[in-house]
Amino acid sequence: MISQCTQSLKNLETCFDKAEQYAAARKFDEAVLMTSRLAPDMQNFTYQVQSACDYVKAAAAWLSGQTPPKHEDNEKSIDELRARVRKTVTFTESVKEVQYVGASERKVKLSWAPGKVIGGEDYLLQMTIPNTFFHIAMAYAILRHNGVDVGKMDFLGPINLVDD
Amino acid sequence: MISQCTQSLKNLETCFDKAEQYAAARKFDEAVLMTSRLAPDMQNFTYQVQSACDYVKAAAAWLSGQTPPKHEDNEKSIDELRARVRKTVTFTESVKEVQYVGASERKVKLSWAPGKVIGGEDYLLQMTIPNTFFHIAMAYAILRHNGVDVGKMDFLGPINLVDD
Repeated sequence: MISQCTQSLKNLETCFDKAEQYAAARKFDEAVLMTSRLAPDMQNFTYQVQSACDYVKAAAAWLSGQTPPKHEDNEKSIDELRARVRKTVTFTESVKEVQYVGASERKVKLSWAPGKVIGGEDYLLQMTIPNTFFHIAMAYAILRHNGVDVGKMDFLGPINLVDD
Repeated sequence: MISQCTQSLKNLETCFDKAEQYAAARKFDEAVLMTSRLAPDMQNFTYQVQSACDYVKAAAAWLSGQTPPKHEDNEKSIDELRARVRKTVTFTESVKEVQYVGASERKVKLSWAPGKVIGGEDYLLQMTIPNTFFHIAMAYAILRHNGVDVGKMDFLGPINLVDD
């Protein structure tokens, strides 16, 4: 399941490409898209990408008994967001299947819930997956709302169809 | 995993409640929210809810060797959308764990890909989960963009924290 979350992060590459092309074609600063949001009290595009990355990175780390690598939130261009996704993917793909043995029995601490923990399986199902897809979907929605020509297939990415 | 998708559908209830309250407080027709969208060529709130329901319903059915029950797309009020979610949840919760035995080896046909099938596990990971969260997130984003006071905790729903 973490590999599917990782794949969904990779799918952001198409959104980045289309966002850059859109800004270039219309001659506006891509930072406008990066700082766009759907509501004044909602986080912007850059944050949505950073947050999606961090949920996947954290799951790959905690569920394999590691401490997540620290990634600074300092991206100033879409190309830097692309690099953020790539270093996240590099980390999550470095975790081997065997390292997840026993993951469902692990206890994970959440920074916003001191004194509490969540079981590994609940963490994956209730935190990692919904949050990852939430933030990727919000990043997508912000671009879509601003006119970038992204479609749901960009969000879904590769689908392994085979001949019947 | 289908149970988490079902839970995420249930979480829409909070969005429905808040949308109704918002429309009532500001004295506008709730149909305005139901027909809202983030871009002119994107589907509206009602469709996002129907579609999320259908992805979960289809997965519960095909992966347990059943044909999905047919639900008409004719909801005209938020209360009817609430009923749509509830009948979907009733169906998916009627499927017992044992009925999913062998699910990953099943082959699922997709209406838009004639002559092709997708394996059960790929179907769950590449179609059901991303599409379900995508459409629920879009429903959420449409309300959020229109000023309804929904927050990410409404989207996430219950989280099983336990004492450390």
